[in-house]
Amino acid sequence: MITGDLERLIQLLSRLPGLGPRSARRAVLHLMKKREALMLPLAEAMARAAESVTVCSNCGNLDSRDPCGICRDPKRDPKLLCVVEEVADLWALERSGAFKGGYHVLGGTLSAIDGRGPDQLNMGRLLDRVAAAKEGEGNGGESGVEEVILALSATVDGQTTAHYISERLAGGGGHGSGIKVSRLAHGVPVGGELDYLDDGTLTAALKARRPA
Amino acid sequence: MITGDLERLIQLLSRLPGLGPRSARRAVLHLMKKREALMLPLAEAMARAAESVTVCSNCGNLDSRDPCGICRDPKRDPKLLCVVEEVADLWALERSGAFKGGYHVLGGTLSAIDGRGPDQLNMGRLLDRVAAAKEGEGNGGESGVEEVILALSATVDGQTTAHYISERLAGGGGHGSGIKVSRLAHGVPVGGELDYLDDGTLTAALKARRPA
Repeated sequence: MITGDLERLIQLLSRLPGLGPRSARRAVLHLMKKREALMLPLAEAMARAAESVTVCSNCGNLDSRDPCGICRDPKRDPKLLCVVEEVADLWALERSGAFKGGYHVLGGTLSAIDGRGPDQLNMGRLLDRVAAAKEGEGNGGESGVEEVILALSATVDGQTTAHYISERLAGGGGHGSGIKVSRLAHGVPVGGELDYLDDGTLTAALKARRPA
Repeated sequence: MITGDLERLIQLLSRLPGLGPRSARRAVLHLMKKREALMLPLAEAMARAAESVTVCSNCGNLDSRDPCGICRDPKRDPKLLCVVEEVADLWALERSGAFKGGYHVLGGTLSAIDGRGPDQLNMGRLLDRVAAAKEGEGNGGESGVEEVILALSATVDGQTTAHYISERLAGGGGHGSGIKVSRLAHGVPVGGELDYLDDGTLTAALKARRPA
């Protein structure tokens, strides 16, 4: 006996990741209690973001402007290009504050199981951006990409994708492209206890050991 | 470097129960991927529900109409009145399909710790409804409430509230009001294993044992 309007709201909310029918019902009752303070602003913010936010045609980031704020920012190092799977990964790197170059969002990984090939990803644009950088260099050394950092997941699909990209960037002709391709280091997570680490991570951390 | 519109949406979404900043970010990225199919309909459904749904002035239920669909329904038994804490409890009872009377939503329980007294709850209206039923009876037996079922939580606050209500309904003057007041049975949950039950529930289930 839930009224139609609430029923529909619950049904739509329950399609968000992390919310099921039960938590959607709870969320809707919470919203109804905070109609002015939360429900109306949230509805408005959602409509506004749906309207204004677009995918950056250069890097695949989400922003109200195209190209996005990161692509426009003159303070960021154009020599570094960090390739990530999703916008969420870009946000995570930005939160760390450890990277000051440009990004390229693939929109996923290659996946044999899910049938995702290079054409389903934002891969052509990546190769174009790197190729443009190379040409720029030939034409007098305009500031272009010098290093591509592959910040992809340490999963089978992520590593397959990283391998594919580094092959493509090395050039089909066999001669080097002059562009450095790197990956994130594997090792012990900061704050992690050895006891709880899997064998693969421990092996990688041992192999990549550094002078103390 | 998240754009303002998305930042605001994330911040508002993370105020929903069950969502933190991390899952709100995930939800927003999911919404951005399903802009037409989910994000715009959700924004619209939320605005519409905020506009149309109100609290029933009779029972405290949420509905697009006032009085609500349950209060208007002539098929429901007006002799039974089920008192619940929240609309969520009303929904749970409706899902069970086991109750066909009317409801009264208190909006919470009495709580010494949170400083909630009878005035902060929808208590006066409950007493009015029952009193009106009594008067109706005196005036020729119009169909009024004959039994009040206290479907409150089996917590200290819930049971305190149940006790308070049954005292008030019994009437201050000491003479019986002629209205039956009952509570939900305590016992083993259907599908529950004895091994995992707490002592209180087991004791209650034993005390209230019935012929097999």
